[in-house]
Amino acid sequence: MTDTNPTAAVLLIGDELLSGRTRDINLQQIAGFLAPLGIAVKEARTVSDEPDAIIAAVNALRAAYTYVFTTGGIGPTHDDITADAIAAAFGVEISEHPDAVALLEARYAAMDTEFTPARRRMTRVPHGASLIANPVSGAPGFQTENVFTLAGVPSIVRGMLGDIGHRLETGAVVHAVTLRAKGLREGDVAEELGVVAEGYPQLSIGSYPWFRSLDDAGVQIVVRGSDEALLAEAEAKIEEMVRAKGIEPYRVEDPAA
Amino acid sequence: MTDTNPTAAVLLIGDELLSGRTRDINLQQIAGFLAPLGIAVKEARTVSDEPDAIIAAVNALRAAYTYVFTTGGIGPTHDDITADAIAAAFGVEISEHPDAVALLEARYAAMDTEFTPARRRMTRVPHGASLIANPVSGAPGFQTENVFTLAGVPSIVRGMLGDIGHRLETGAVVHAVTLRAKGLREGDVAEELGVVAEGYPQLSIGSYPWFRSLDDAGVQIVVRGSDEALLAEAEAKIEEMVRAKGIEPYRVEDPAA
Repeated sequence: MTDTNPTAAVLLIGDELLSGRTRDINLQQIAGFLAPLGIAVKEARTVSDEPDAIIAAVNALRAAYTYVFTTGGIGPTHDDITADAIAAAFGVEISEHPDAVALLEARYAAMDTEFTPARRRMTRVPHGASLIANPVSGAPGFQTENVFTLAGVPSIVRGMLGDIGHRLETGAVVHAVTLRAKGLREGDVAEELGVVAEGYPQLSIGSYPWFRSLDDAGVQIVVRGSDEALLAEAEAKIEEMVRAKGIEPYRVEDPAA
Repeated sequence: MTDTNPTAAVLLIGDELLSGRTRDINLQQIAGFLAPLGIAVKEARTVSDEPDAIIAAVNALRAAYTYVFTTGGIGPTHDDITADAIAAAFGVEISEHPDAVALLEARYAAMDTEFTPARRRMTRVPHGASLIANPVSGAPGFQTENVFTLAGVPSIVRGMLGDIGHRLETGAVVHAVTLRAKGLREGDVAEELGVVAEGYPQLSIGSYPWFRSLDDAGVQIVVRGSDEALLAEAEAKIEEMVRAKGIEPYRVEDPAA
């Protein structure tokens, strides 16, 4: 479809995501932020709070994709090791960034809160990195070449994304249409849908069944591409195909609903 | 902490997870299933519906971890390519499994539904694989050596997990205690918490801030380990530490709540 577009990977860092106690929302949030910029997330990884795991993943992903976004592990506690791991991945030193120190010094002074050594840890960034503003809680993220290191707290990630868009090379916007067909079974349309997909190699056509109960099951068909005319053409064909099975498909604007 | 325990990786397959239109729940579901068996998920990856991406991830993960669980891409449509990718990753042939054919033949006959070529695709498994029962919708998953290939629909994954536990080597159960301290800031306890963590190298102690609004912010501290006596000891120390800041910590049984 849009093979010349920039690509991205997301690296989620944190034991709690792997233990199942926390359900990630940042992948979805970052992908949703990048989509209108024509940047597609091609891979995501979740690793534990272990230096070797983070370093290996950062180096694999930054070599394979245009941009990498990491989340988590940049706070003040002992398990916040992401900044050190990024420095190690790039083979550079790490130390307190004077702008980050000034920023947090002022912030904690205003809050009448002690600027402890633990809090100073949050000013350490790899040499050569530039800061990413954090309008929510102050402590900045940072950009090291094509790797953006963000917080783990979703509201802070959202805030930091505001200081990232202008740094990115954008691509052709990929539009997506989601058609929902309640009561349809994938097997009822699989052959025909495959024929439509073959007829539109410039588009990506995906089929996603849902099955909550016998009364609440069906198929979502997602058509994705940058050429809106082609997209509309394929959508019409799929609608016709579903209608021929006696089911009226409907467009969904928010597929999570 | 429990370095001799079996390990696991989860490979989530599907463009829609990367586009941000679908938020994954299977990682959490699988991790929650494995935790009481003493098997920790050490890594998760999300890849698109592209053969090369799936093959590379399967081969990397099956070499590095005791078990791999894949989700998604085993339905009847053109974008369901996981079974072929698994066969390619293992370098084996793929064909219809007679037990799977018999099963689906009977199922569709009972539903008075045509057993189309697309539906027959769901009976194809890599040579040497054993079937995993699907009590929800019939079409089986399959096990290829240490790789378990499951559906993507969460209710079906849940069903398939029922036919997996008995195949796994188990480890020492890792217990977790979550303490929530509303109003606490990580920087207030970071040094002391680091000292506690250093004192209990057999435990893993993580600190996870939340920040929903100025009135709804705090820190969750998670202590994890297989030795319950040590766990209780560390928990008491952390509670004392938080109380010394004028905040009463409380245990949370379901940290997602």
